[in-house]
Amino acid sequence: MTQFINKKEDIVAEAIDGLVAASGGRLARLDGFPHIRVVVRADWDRSKVALVSGGGAGHEPAHAGFVGPGMLTAAVCGDVFASPSVDAVLAGILAVTGRAGCLLIVKNYTGDRLNFGLAAERARAFGLNVRVVIVDDDVALPDLPQARGVAGTLFVHKIAGALADSGADLATVTAAAEQVIAGIHSIGMSLDTCTVPGAPKEDRIPAGKAELGLGIHGEAGVEQVDYVDARGAVAMVAEKLSPFMRPGVPHTVLINNLGGASVLEMQVLLYELARSPIADRIGHVIGPAAMMTSLDMRGFSVSVYPADGTHLAALEAPCGPAAWPGISRLTPVEVVNLPDGLKPIKPLPSAHAPTRAFLTRCCEILIGAEALLNQLDAKAGDGDTGSTLAGAARSLLSVMDDLPLADHTQLCRAIGLELSQTMGGSSGVLLAIFFAAAGDAASSGLSLTEALKAGLQRMQEIGGAQLGDRTMVDALHPALASLAEGGLPAAARAAREGANATAQMVRAKAGRSTYINAEQLRGHADPGAEAVAILFERLQG
Amino acid sequence: MTQFINKKEDIVAEAIDGLVAASGGRLARLDGFPHIRVVVRADWDRSKVALVSGGGAGHEPAHAGFVGPGMLTAAVCGDVFASPSVDAVLAGILAVTGRAGCLLIVKNYTGDRLNFGLAAERARAFGLNVRVVIVDDDVALPDLPQARGVAGTLFVHKIAGALADSGADLATVTAAAEQVIAGIHSIGMSLDTCTVPGAPKEDRIPAGKAELGLGIHGEAGVEQVDYVDARGAVAMVAEKLSPFMRPGVPHTVLINNLGGASVLEMQVLLYELARSPIADRIGHVIGPAAMMTSLDMRGFSVSVYPADGTHLAALEAPCGPAAWPGISRLTPVEVVNLPDGLKPIKPLPSAHAPTRAFLTRCCEILIGAEALLNQLDAKAGDGDTGSTLAGAARSLLSVMDDLPLADHTQLCRAIGLELSQTMGGSSGVLLAIFFAAAGDAASSGLSLTEALKAGLQRMQEIGGAQLGDRTMVDALHPALASLAEGGLPAAARAAREGANATAQMVRAKAGRSTYINAEQLRGHADPGAEAVAILFERLQG
Repeated sequence: MTQFINKKEDIVAEAIDGLVAASGGRLARLDGFPHIRVVVRADWDRSKVALVSGGGAGHEPAHAGFVGPGMLTAAVCGDVFASPSVDAVLAGILAVTGRAGCLLIVKNYTGDRLNFGLAAERARAFGLNVRVVIVDDDVALPDLPQARGVAGTLFVHKIAGALADSGADLATVTAAAEQVIAGIHSIGMSLDTCTVPGAPKEDRIPAGKAELGLGIHGEAGVEQVDYVDARGAVAMVAEKLSPFMRPGVPHTVLINNLGGASVLEMQVLLYELARSPIADRIGHVIGPAAMMTSLDMRGFSVSVYPADGTHLAALEAPCGPAAWPGISRLTPVEVVNLPDGLKPIKPLPSAHAPTRAFLTRCCEILIGAEALLNQLDAKAGDGDTGSTLAGAARSLLSVMDDLPLADHTQLCRAIGLELSQTMGGSSGVLLAIFFAAAGDAASSGLSLTEALKAGLQRMQEIGGAQLGDRTMVDALHPALASLAEGGLPAAARAAREGANATAQMVRAKAGRSTYINAEQLRGHADPGAEAVAILFERLQG
Repeated sequence: MTQFINKKEDIVAEAIDGLVAASGGRLARLDGFPHIRVVVRADWDRSKVALVSGGGAGHEPAHAGFVGPGMLTAAVCGDVFASPSVDAVLAGILAVTGRAGCLLIVKNYTGDRLNFGLAAERARAFGLNVRVVIVDDDVALPDLPQARGVAGTLFVHKIAGALADSGADLATVTAAAEQVIAGIHSIGMSLDTCTVPGAPKEDRIPAGKAELGLGIHGEAGVEQVDYVDARGAVAMVAEKLSPFMRPGVPHTVLINNLGGASVLEMQVLLYELARSPIADRIGHVIGPAAMMTSLDMRGFSVSVYPADGTHLAALEAPCGPAAWPGISRLTPVEVVNLPDGLKPIKPLPSAHAPTRAFLTRCCEILIGAEALLNQLDAKAGDGDTGSTLAGAARSLLSVMDDLPLADHTQLCRAIGLELSQTMGGSSGVLLAIFFAAAGDAASSGLSLTEALKAGLQRMQEIGGAQLGDRTMVDALHPALASLAEGGLPAAARAAREGANATAQMVRAKAGRSTYINAEQLRGHADPGAEAVAILFERLQG
């Protein structure tokens, strides 16, 4: 699988420089590429407890994306899925630790434990006050004495971050972090493996299966389970988490995108969580968002923590990093009544013999032109222009008794409504817009001709067709322009000239004919324009 | 490709309810599922200009994710990649439009134009003041008179949103939106197609190729280009955008994840953009983030807009939606000097005959036990415990003249440092931690025995090994516990008992032996524990 990277060995350094460049000066990084890759707050004055986290890359935005006020002070980055070196961690600690001390937040993977652990010892030899907490929130392997650290780590970053930012001392921040760690539980599920740069993508998960109980380094899940749908997936996840949730207290749930699930899917998973067996134990939600990813893995993880009091407040506290998605109460969906007006109030019918006769004649003309227009459309389209217009005409005839024939404003609107409901397709909508906008214009006092012109203009704005684009506009526009001065004969002549001219327009710029090549179009008028010309011509006769 | 969804026809409604449920009460949706899917601000009082946008689903977080203070008032959602109905759009307009009027922000796709256009007409028939703007930012097809609307639409949402929120009237908001639209240009690139729910994934892009000039509905890009790396990808994108960028003014660049690119890749793309041919014309950056996605497409798009003055301020204005990633100046990467202290200052050597003799004897014992320990390790590991320890011992002997033998505190630290640099592997780091922490404890005034105990405790904390886990701890812990009272003989006895006991520990819980099955372990002592026992036993002799 091709990826948007350059040389494999440069990925992490380049990604860091990308992040720092777009931080608006809020982040900096230590000198020391390629071996030492540490992102630090640019505005850090060491007056408060520093929080340092990190680990292998491939989990972005973790950890560097969470460096900022109210969260981490520095992030130490290793290669993809590989722990940073002791020197790199030590550099991170030394760069940000002042007299208030430093807390290292380490995910429970052997490499990270050892390298962060030894770096802490080295830093202590300088007299620095360094504490270490190890996050082990994964419940995939309940028998394993050393559970992995996964996305629940974000709870620690945020809560410890808010406390440190508020000026709490190292002992307080550490105790809070330990309390949080004791209460976080996470589990992940995936439908596909991730793409490790430079390695062939493993095809491990067969169709119809999912992996449950994932780490965040592409390793296989603890079990392969039958996958049916989002609801089933969330049910399995909820079942794994449920035994670890404290009874009787609301939990905050963090929903993490492992990198490759679409935002749409994540929202569906959230929907399922909100009606899952653990839904009534969820008070707040963080995400869904990509926080602790496993590169591009199509998977998600759910972490739960019974945050209350100061810890809930810490989760809610504003913070700098844009990657933190915020926290919200999980609430029932508020459903607002549909507004009035969706069912259009049909105007009262009214009689007007001349209008009825005129409209009936228009309809008859279009019905009579059905075969001819279909034939013409077959040259450049699917041969249904005639039938579409004739069908609309028949519908209009059938509702003639219900139309407000005596009120042109209302009549235009009513015709527009009728066309939008019966004609279908783009042309139906466009003609509906034409008549509705004409009615709108007429209601503001314009003459019928001017109102029709206004309708045409609105139809062109929405449809995008200009003169010369080989559409009905090429006949309708000149016809309406001639109507006021020259009456029907002038309008008919103009419409005919316009329609004929479309036979030479071989580069359609709007409508369906845009997809037809020039030679097929040459010599044949646009059927929509032809329909307009026929209508005006026959109205005279 | 399996996806985290339930029934295909329910995706959009479920995703909306997920979003609304996790909005903390800030969002609501209209009654009217399944046909009318409209997300609205729950706190909206119609006192300001309403902004309504929307379109097909599959672009999440657009559009519903951008409903909130300072951005959209309502989002109207169609099926995946299909325009919402006229009724749905009309419902959205009617639900939020007051006397200040409403602006519809429509992406330039035929279905959206028509349905939003007709809905606008219908709303006008109710006397509502409704304006429509059509976003056409895609530069993929420069000859096409109707460019598509893609991710640049976010500029319109944010700028018009901030203006409307500040109380601007409809004419002002519309004029601003039109000005923004005239200035936005976007182009997308992808390495893989997206997975449309219910349809087989199209395998259209061969290895080594990318598609340039993408819409956001999974349609093929305008051209297939050779793909080399992220740098080349950004160069092609920059080349397409460059002719459209206004000379001499800084642009804001929006970097959008089309859904399936990893966060790591997006940061690399940002890095490349910051050193691309258009880098010196970039003033600010929005993203990288998934804003206008094409489901799970592994691709990105870049949009440019020369925002200045009020429009830049509008982009910078705080807003409600968490999906908005914020805007930052693009700056040179700030590189901070590495802190002092990474090269440990070696303590001054000092002589102390008894210590030298004791340490030398320890080393000799470990060297002497090399073959025996290797043999033991071969039962349960890779047979190198003896060699690893003997190698470390030889290293220590070789630097004996450089050690601060007269100062136990410094000596512990120096041994730790030496081991971390020469011994390698997890055990090297753990022993380094043991000695470094012992030195740390000794410096605070503890006796050597107590200091070693403190070192052991730290080593256990970091390594995670408890008594009974079949590690060297099983011998070292009882030995140190006996040392103060019973001296070396008691310590040796305790170490031996502890080491022998490991032969019956068949369920290793820490270290490498966790991967070995029980029957292979039974009857063989852990080589690390055995090494400790041998050391104490032979020190007596």
